[in-house]
Amino acid sequence: MDEQRTEIASLGEFGLIDHLTRNNETMQAGTMLSVGDDAAVIDQFGKQTVISSDMLLEGIHFDLAYTPLKHLGYKAVAVNLSDICAMGATPTHITLNIGISNRFSVEALDEFYEGVYAACARYNVDLVGGDTSSSQKGFVISVTAIGEVSPGEYVTRSGAQKNDLICVSGDLGGAYVGLQLLEREKRIFLENPGVQPTLQDKAYIIGRILKPEPRTDIVSWLQEKEIKPRAMIDISDGLSSELLHICKQSGVGCVLHEDKIPMHNETREMAFEFNIDPTLCALSGGEDYELLFTIAQEEYEKIVLSEQISVIGYITDAAEGAHLLSRQGNKHKLTAQGWNAFEA
Amino acid sequence: MDEQRTEIASLGEFGLIDHLTRNNETMQAGTMLSVGDDAAVIDQFGKQTVISSDMLLEGIHFDLAYTPLKHLGYKAVAVNLSDICAMGATPTHITLNIGISNRFSVEALDEFYEGVYAACARYNVDLVGGDTSSSQKGFVISVTAIGEVSPGEYVTRSGAQKNDLICVSGDLGGAYVGLQLLEREKRIFLENPGVQPTLQDKAYIIGRILKPEPRTDIVSWLQEKEIKPRAMIDISDGLSSELLHICKQSGVGCVLHEDKIPMHNETREMAFEFNIDPTLCALSGGEDYELLFTIAQEEYEKIVLSEQISVIGYITDAAEGAHLLSRQGNKHKLTAQGWNAFEA
Repeated sequence: MDEQRTEIASLGEFGLIDHLTRNNETMQAGTMLSVGDDAAVIDQFGKQTVISSDMLLEGIHFDLAYTPLKHLGYKAVAVNLSDICAMGATPTHITLNIGISNRFSVEALDEFYEGVYAACARYNVDLVGGDTSSSQKGFVISVTAIGEVSPGEYVTRSGAQKNDLICVSGDLGGAYVGLQLLEREKRIFLENPGVQPTLQDKAYIIGRILKPEPRTDIVSWLQEKEIKPRAMIDISDGLSSELLHICKQSGVGCVLHEDKIPMHNETREMAFEFNIDPTLCALSGGEDYELLFTIAQEEYEKIVLSEQISVIGYITDAAEGAHLLSRQGNKHKLTAQGWNAFEA
Repeated sequence: MDEQRTEIASLGEFGLIDHLTRNNETMQAGTMLSVGDDAAVIDQFGKQTVISSDMLLEGIHFDLAYTPLKHLGYKAVAVNLSDICAMGATPTHITLNIGISNRFSVEALDEFYEGVYAACARYNVDLVGGDTSSSQKGFVISVTAIGEVSPGEYVTRSGAQKNDLICVSGDLGGAYVGLQLLEREKRIFLENPGVQPTLQDKAYIIGRILKPEPRTDIVSWLQEKEIKPRAMIDISDGLSSELLHICKQSGVGCVLHEDKIPMHNETREMAFEFNIDPTLCALSGGEDYELLFTIAQEEYEKIVLSEQISVIGYITDAAEGAHLLSRQGNKHKLTAQGWNAFEA
């Protein structure tokens, strides 16, 4: 970006779109028509269409001080695909709208789109449309993801039943401590610009916040093993908040075992360094984009085959409420401490 | 809005979404799952899915000084449905993402959503998802529209053939002069806040800019009469810009007859008052959201049955270029003077 700077105005609106979509290859057989017309046409071959939409705003959802644009593009796609996964569906297409101020160069936008296309390629998803506008201030990103699922096979938040096992993929809390670390390094840098951050041994947790991965692998694995979750959600706001969504929408309660919550060593160590309870990072941290789901007890034998899935509790009657059973054997009421976008 | 002000923070993120979607009724039989889960599920019954996405940013696409929020909500939906119409498809669903700063009250948002739901109801479209975020500055709107069309029946920009007739629905230029009028009244108001604008006899052109209507009626009519346009586009950037899109993507040229361009009397009068050539308003004004399409000459007998459709020219070989034939019989080269979002 230091070597060359092409002004967006020099391409014009349509030139910019041509430029940004010049490497856009479609992979889905069902993509009848992609970028370059008024809309995209998708043939779903008798499958059901799943669609989800998310917006990312500069200063609210990301800080360009420590978010490389390529990672931002990747993440903008990834978090939307994660919503499709949370339905037990397979993502197939996205549309992308962006608003950019004139402080962005074409090269900067290229970096962003490199990340977008990398995520599309990684997850076999077609970018089939969207809109590019100028914005007065700040970078604005809006993604809509489309997915498919066999008729009736989608998984909602409302199907959990008493005695179901509560399962989660991967590990939790990493994105939260990764964000704390980036925020700390930003403060140090602002106070003392000569100091280079030492993040080498923190690759895992930084990857968790900057480059989340939607768990399409878990969805495929569940389909292969013919395990149909009764309820499912992806973890964007934190384990407790998401679990409470399932409980509320299913009309059930739950018991969560603190000692079963999967955490990476790097997450645990970083939490201790920050003097935060690691469990709190998992419960309230958010942005891990793992899948949280419940299954019938009979499915337990199948689930244990996956190293990527942990059983962390069970569903109860609604009357019993939602609780965390601590390592010490104490029962704590579970509260949603997930991020509230509108609190000061 | 003067009587009551509910702070968004008082509802919380999920409370706000519940509040905003409380009157959201689904109408499509194919809506298996709507707002309230990670994604929406749509059954298309063997039809093809059409999807289009657009972003509207405060200060760029709209000015809240003279845009009532209800109209803004209506328009945000309408312009996306217009893209679906431009494919010859029938809109069925939308998703809506918004970013709002804390200067908005719940009542203000309600007004916006009133317009959104009014457009959905008017066009029998379901709002099936989306995201509500806080923004640091400015109101941000992103809509994705989904539509359906029988397999293979969608209309692109690239099918125009030599000797095709060029047709347009409704009339043109009204939105442009309407916008000029609102801008003038805003300037007068800012200079002299005591002066009330006199817009009573300007209802048509103000409606054109503030409350555009997607031409689903034209799409239905064409289907009924079994007229399949060869190329189609909706007029968001102005007639000349859109016609040049069709010519470029179809590899053809065109002759446009100035005297055939349909214009409303109020548009013409307002243009004269502003000392602008009315034809220029139609060619370069944009935001009329009418449908521009080409048909084979054999279809002419069917087209003349509609008072809503005008034949305004014909398609030529690419080598002949794109021209406007003026009232005086002079040939002018057609240039795209459509709005360029990135020019200062």
